[in-house]
This record gives sequence, C-alpha cells and structure tokens, in this order.
Amino acid sequence: MPHHESSPTTVDLVTVDDIKEAGPRIASLARRTPTLPAVVAGRNAWLKCENLQVGGSFKIRGAANAVALLSPAELAAGVVAHSSGNHAQALARAARAAGTRATIVMPRDAPLVKQAATREEGAEIVFVDIADRISETERIQQQSGATLIPPFDDPRVIAGQGTVGLEILGDVPDLDAVLVPVSGGGLISGIAVAVKSLRPDVAVIGVEPALAGDLAEGFAAGRRVEWPSSRTGATVADGLRVPSVGVQPWRHIQAYVDDVVTVSEDEIRTAMHDLAVTQHLVAEPSGAVSYAALQVHGPRFGDRPVCVISGGNVEPSLLAEVVGSAA
Amino acid sequence: MPHHESSPTTVDLVTVDDIKEAGPRIASLARRTPTLPAVVAGRNAWLKCENLQVGGSFKIRGAANAVALLSPAELAAGVVAHSSGNHAQALARAARAAGTRATIVMPRDAPLVKQAATREEGAEIVFVDIADRISETERIQQQSGATLIPPFDDPRVIAGQGTVGLEILGDVPDLDAVLVPVSGGGLISGIAVAVKSLRPDVAVIGVEPALAGDLAEGFAAGRRVEWPSSRTGATVADGLRVPSVGVQPWRHIQAYVDDVVTVSEDEIRTAMHDLAVTQHLVAEPSGAVSYAALQVHGPRFGDRPVCVISGGNVEPSLLAEVVGSAA
Repeated sequence: MPHHESSPTTVDLVTVDDIKEAGPRIASLARRTPTLPAVVAGRNAWLKCENLQVGGSFKIRGAANAVALLSPAELAAGVVAHSSGNHAQALARAARAAGTRATIVMPRDAPLVKQAATREEGAEIVFVDIADRISETERIQQQSGATLIPPFDDPRVIAGQGTVGLEILGDVPDLDAVLVPVSGGGLISGIAVAVKSLRPDVAVIGVEPALAGDLAEGFAAGRRVEWPSSRTGATVADGLRVPSVGVQPWRHIQAYVDDVVTVSEDEIRTAMHDLAVTQHLVAEPSGAVSYAALQVHGPRFGDRPVCVISGGNVEPSLLAEVVGSAA
Repeated sequence: MPHHESSPTTVDLVTVDDIKEAGPRIASLARRTPTLPAVVAGRNAWLKCENLQVGGSFKIRGAANAVALLSPAELAAGVVAHSSGNHAQALARAARAAGTRATIVMPRDAPLVKQAATREEGAEIVFVDIADRISETERIQQQSGATLIPPFDDPRVIAGQGTVGLEILGDVPDLDAVLVPVSGGGLISGIAVAVKSLRPDVAVIGVEPALAGDLAEGFAAGRRVEWPSSRTGATVADGLRVPSVGVQPWRHIQAYVDDVVTVSEDEIRTAMHDLAVTQHLVAEPSGAVSYAALQVHGPRFGDRPVCVISGGNVEPSLLAEVVGSAA
C-alpha cells in the first residue's frame, strides 16, 4: 500500500472490478501486447510493449472503454476530445468502430505523424494554440452535443488503461515494481489500481521528464501542482507536456502510487537509442522515460521490474537523430 | 505440397518430429517470440518477430539445438563456426550456457554491432577475408578438436530453426503463406518442413535481395547455384551475402518451398523505414526483406500472410540513415 502517513480515501475511485470489466469490452479494438524479457543496464527487466499496441500507444484501451459505455443517443451525437496526439488517434479509431464521428482539438505543433494517423482514422481535426484547447473543446461540445472523452481525467478512461496492469500481473506474476510514464496520469492511475488491489507489495513508480516534473514536485509536496505549458513545452517528450495530472488521476495517484522519479532529456534520448539498437523496439520519447529511469536508477526497483513502454509514435527525423547519436 | 512436377525425395531430410523434439531442448535459451498482427500496404498480415529473439535473431534456436545434442567429450573440446555475425553470437551464447568455449571465424567487415555482441558472449573471434573463412574454420577444427557447428548446413541447426514454423502455426492457425528471408537456407528449410508437414496447403516463400539472388536463380533452374561473394557483397543485407544456400538446405528447399522472390535495395531500405516508423520494430536489412516482399507483392500471398522478421542487429548509423530518409 502507499507510503503516505495517512492514506487518502479510496471512495469513488476506479476499482479493480471496473478494470476487469473493461477487458472484454475493449478486446475487439485493443491488443494484448507482449511483455518481453530484457537485460537493462546489466539487470533483468521486462518491457510491457504498448508501442506495439494498435495505433502505437496504450490510448486505445481507455478510448475504447469510454466509447463502449456511451448510450445510443450519446453515440448519435459523436465524441470530442483535446489531445496532443495518441488519444486523438485512439478515440478516432474507437469512434469509427462504434459507427460515430470524432472531433479532435489538437495543438498546432502536434507531431505530424500523430496528425496524419488521426486523420487516417477518419476524425476531424481542429487546430488551436495549446492554451486554448480546453475552451475550444467546450465550444464544440456545446455546439454539437458531442460527448467529451477526455484523454485522462475520466474514470472510464482510467479503467481502460488499467487493463495494462492486469496483463502485466498475468505475464510477470512475481514482479517487484512497475515503472509508468506520467503525463495526465490516466495510465498510471489505472495500472496502480490494478496492481495495488491485487498485489499491494508491488511498487508502482511514476516517471516524468525533469522538464515536465509537475507530478514529482506535487507528489513530494502532497498537493496537485500545475506547471505552465511554456515550461513543460521544453521537453522532447511531446506526449508528457500536459501542465498537470488530472483531478481524478491525482486522487488515484495519492492513494496508490509509491514514488515519482524524473529523468533528463539526455537520459530520454539515450533510452530511445538503446531501445532501438539493443531491444529492437521503437519508442517515442514519452514512451521511453520509464526505460530511462531503469537505466539510471535500476537497483532501486528490485530484481524484477516491469517497464511500461507506453508508445512508439515518433517523428522519423527525431528517431534518426537519436539513433545516429552515440549512446 | 511443392509445385514441382516431380517431387524430390524426402529421405534423410529433417522431419517435423526432429523439430518438435528441438522445442523443449532450446526452451531455456530461446524465447517464444510474439507474432504481431499488422497492416502492411493496406492488407492484414502477421509479423513473426525474431528481431525480438534473445540475441536479436532466430539463430539461437539452431545453435542451442546443435549444442544440446553434443556428447560430453565433444563439449569438452569446444565448438567452432564461421559466421557473418548472428550465428556467431548465438553459438557463443549456447556454448557458454553449456559450459564450453566457442571460436568464431568472422569476415573482417562484419558489422561492429555483431562483433561486439559475439565478444560479449565470451567467444574468441578470428578475423579472415570472406573467401578464407571455410579453410580457416577447418584449420581450427583440426588443431583443437572442436566440433564445427555450421550456421545452416546442418540437420541439428535446421531442426532448431524449424521451431519458428511450429510457433507460427500455433499463433496464426489459418495462415495462407509464410515469407522467409533466405541466406544459407537453414531458417527456410526448418520452417518449410514444419509448415508443409502439418499444413501442406500453406505457401512457403523465400525472399532474397536481388543482388544476392542465387537461390531465386537456382530455384527457377532446378539446381543449386553459387554467386561469388564479390557479387553478393553489394547488398545492404549483410546477413544474406552467403554465396549459395547450403547443400542440405537446398534439398529441403527443393522438397518443400513453393517460390522464391527477390526485392531491390531500395525496397529493403523502405521496409526497414516503415517497420520502424509504422510498426515500431527495428529490423536489420536481412530481417526486413520479407516485409519488403509483402509491401511490393502483397496480394500474391493471400489474405493471411505471415512475414518472418528474422533479425534486428543493425548498425545504428545505417538505421539512422534509412529512418531519416523519406519512405
């Protein structure tokens, strides 16, 4: 259980039963990804490969679960979301599979590869400055009656992402710790509920870029803090530039997460390089922060750590740059 | 069954029972790799990911099976092989696990990443000009009494590689075809025995670079042909520069393989690029030729093709180059 002196309440949090119910609900859209054994910095580890997920990131799990829970009337009016990319593509895919339409509000500087993937899934994209994305999303909601499917601040989404945790427990039953990239906190919330409910002795560790270390700061201080986009925008990990974890993820994190660590930009690039060259896996920067933490702080996480590689959608130019640099 | 008018004899060929027996024998060293669904050129396909195998290629399967079949006296004298890289690393690992020593004869221009991996597994490397590798290997055999474990021209090795075929049949029971990179022919021989013995209706297709298309020429002509190293050396696919398939692989290929196709250097580079950017998998050029064939000739292989990605050990500079180029 968490290391906090007084555990926060778990009333109204997502439960492991919500996650177990999400499993069959998303099975036609999301893949059970492999958990691969690996040697990282000379120590055994396992890589949960959500970069090999449908659409190249874990996001399809939460989006598919949320869309599956909509009523016929809600489905008829469509769905809307703001996202820097992976949630956008996932929601577009889930909406199309459910026979409804998705509108995605996206920052103008979202990676081209993510823009293209979202468009290919049939969604309409509305570009905004990153600061305007919430207001623009609300405007679309009111105008069209579409249901907002948030990227992380939503129990249906958290429950969907939690299926990653159940799969990890199935694949590596005797794990010591799980390392999870943190942006809005939906993924780590779901994984933490699943893991801590079934295996309270397993450590659940969040990982952020130091340049977007809002949760590391907030976790240490015991309160949710926000960093301005102008600050978090400096990290190469475009998927982790969200100014803070969501309100609901924050409550799950307080209840269930053991620690939050940060990694430097150089450590993220080295992790991407080494994942490609030694593990033969392509991770986006956001997906590689957990591997970076394992490379830098390995012994802290016991003898059987599982590292969630959360996504692989990286601009080819950036991938070429980090692969071509010496490790 | 094969399309030849008169089927060659299958007397003394490796059998599916040899392959079934190899499975448990290699299980402690080789991994059951994932077979991932994918969309390739707009069509469904499956990728058998031997780039995610221990050591980054399928070669550990054959090496582990061959070493497991040595007598105590043979083990005491060590093993020797010539290899451009992946077999070297695999044999070194299998030898170390069995408590014996490996000597590897390697061409001077073998990729640095493969040299380093072989050394890390504890083998001794002897560098030669590619034309001298067989004579040098024989010299070491005679001098030390070590057992030669050839990279492909050996029934124990063929049986080990055949376990890839059994796993494919388990993962995609209703497949139409399997596409396999060809160099010395050990991998396709083993896969073809497994697949054709259990599912004679499934097409087994070999893939070569056009610049190392000795088997494509020989298969069409009905006789084993050899291309000089000076010619095959021009392909980017360093693992496929062997002048011809082995004598024993040739007999298995004649008996069980349906067709051999070739791909261009540009098609190989595009396949590597797309595997990394869209599938998030790193393949070496030799491992990507099968994917290239699927991209170029997709509809020829039915609605359910399985593509063997045979390895991932690529020089970072080459990977960076192909990823950074436009697809």
